[in-house]
Amino acid sequence: MKFRRSERLIDMTHYLLDHPRELVSLSFFSERYGSAKSSISEDLAIIKEAFEHRGIGTLQTVPGAAGGVKYFVKVSELEAKPFIDELCHLIANPDRLLPGGYLYMMDLLGDPSIVQRAGRLLASAYIDTKIDVVMTVATKGIPLAYAVASQLNVPVVIVRRDSKVTEGSTVSINYVSGSSKRIQTMLLSKRSLEEGSNVLIVDDFMKAGGTVNGMISLLEEFNAAVAGIAVLVEAEKTEERLIDDYLSLVKLSDVDVKEKKITVSEGNYFQKVEV
Amino acid sequence: MKFRRSERLIDMTHYLLDHPRELVSLSFFSERYGSAKSSISEDLAIIKEAFEHRGIGTLQTVPGAAGGVKYFVKVSELEAKPFIDELCHLIANPDRLLPGGYLYMMDLLGDPSIVQRAGRLLASAYIDTKIDVVMTVATKGIPLAYAVASQLNVPVVIVRRDSKVTEGSTVSINYVSGSSKRIQTMLLSKRSLEEGSNVLIVDDFMKAGGTVNGMISLLEEFNAAVAGIAVLVEAEKTEERLIDDYLSLVKLSDVDVKEKKITVSEGNYFQKVEV
Repeated sequence: MKFRRSERLIDMTHYLLDHPRELVSLSFFSERYGSAKSSISEDLAIIKEAFEHRGIGTLQTVPGAAGGVKYFVKVSELEAKPFIDELCHLIANPDRLLPGGYLYMMDLLGDPSIVQRAGRLLASAYIDTKIDVVMTVATKGIPLAYAVASQLNVPVVIVRRDSKVTEGSTVSINYVSGSSKRIQTMLLSKRSLEEGSNVLIVDDFMKAGGTVNGMISLLEEFNAAVAGIAVLVEAEKTEERLIDDYLSLVKLSDVDVKEKKITVSEGNYFQKVEV
Repeated sequence: MKFRRSERLIDMTHYLLDHPRELVSLSFFSERYGSAKSSISEDLAIIKEAFEHRGIGTLQTVPGAAGGVKYFVKVSELEAKPFIDELCHLIANPDRLLPGGYLYMMDLLGDPSIVQRAGRLLASAYIDTKIDVVMTVATKGIPLAYAVASQLNVPVVIVRRDSKVTEGSTVSINYVSGSSKRIQTMLLSKRSLEEGSNVLIVDDFMKAGGTVNGMISLLEEFNAAVAGIAVLVEAEKTEERLIDDYLSLVKLSDVDVKEKKITVSEGNYFQKVEV
């Protein structure tokens, strides 16, 4: 059965979006639609142009017999800028102020559409980075970690603060929380991470960076390498930041509980990432 | 600037997949591409046919001035059946046996592609159900809950077992775990759920159903209604199941620690859902 070009374009778009960073051979599409490879090549050229033009992402063509095409998410500045502005606006809403100057964030982190857009944006920054796995810490970082990982087409490992029987044997470390200076524990299931993995650390919020630092220590136990650190929100006013090289979408500069004012600005995304 | 049909089809496919269950007006697309509404209508007819033919989902057309089109995920049996078979095969792998007969599941729950396919399948079952929010309990249910919620285009609320300062004020209940008969606590941030919401409960695993029952009690405190219960795996051998009406993809019949044998079969999905 043969497919018209229009149907092929629709199905290929869906397939590629669903399989980011995966090498899909021309033969696969050619068999799927009973079409000549030359037609598939033309289709892919049309999709590549449309993806780049609409800021959806890009296609990389791998030539040769074992070749094919790979889709990468790539958010354009045209989309990234208003999204980060929207995030800033949402986070500055004084309604999210909690006693003690904490911020309620679950309305944002509970919105799959926001989380996915943030995930796409962060994933865009690691197109050229070798990443085998995304790591986060339970609980609030989990949705963002999956959103990033699904765009990078890699698994997620979740660090916990308490041991659960369903984790099997675990490796645990003690670390000092950067802001409260208290000693805390975090642990990771032994079988969840392979030795030598390249790990992207993702979290919702980074203050002094104690938690992220803890995750880095944990990675050392697995002989794994830090491929990057990406957070939704970084808090600016921290005397001693434990982490230097990270990516953030939003910067929280000040929380004034008395005046009910939350001051936020763009994170370092556009300084770090070419869009 | 005018767009060729091929580029429109690609961008509309991406847009619709990205905005499930959202009414998109013809005018929106018409303005987006500078094309006549009649052309957009033709495009949508092509996309609808391709989506249904390829088992991606379906488009519902809402007629009239305030009308437009809505995309719904709808996994075909052709895709659902082999996926559930694959899940069964993966879960039956004796390597996941832990001391005490527990199963290590984070390899599956940590794989965004598996989680998303499971989420699409579960979401397909609720096309005609009014759902305002997806609820799950930390930690392991979270990825699946987001996968379902993103297809239903609704927020996620996360029930916790311990209170966190960033949750604000919470409502807590005590409940009796179905299998261990121990009294446990769960709590939900007050501001995370509106009164009268229709809630789909999603979890990774259901044994006797004590946890799900706890979530139902919690919903009563919020005057919210249970719109459905969907789990990845149900355990079959439970003397008294506390929950009757639920959806499962996989049924765990037996775990034989001595013989290292895990017996699984298809859940009740195909009995409950017309595919």
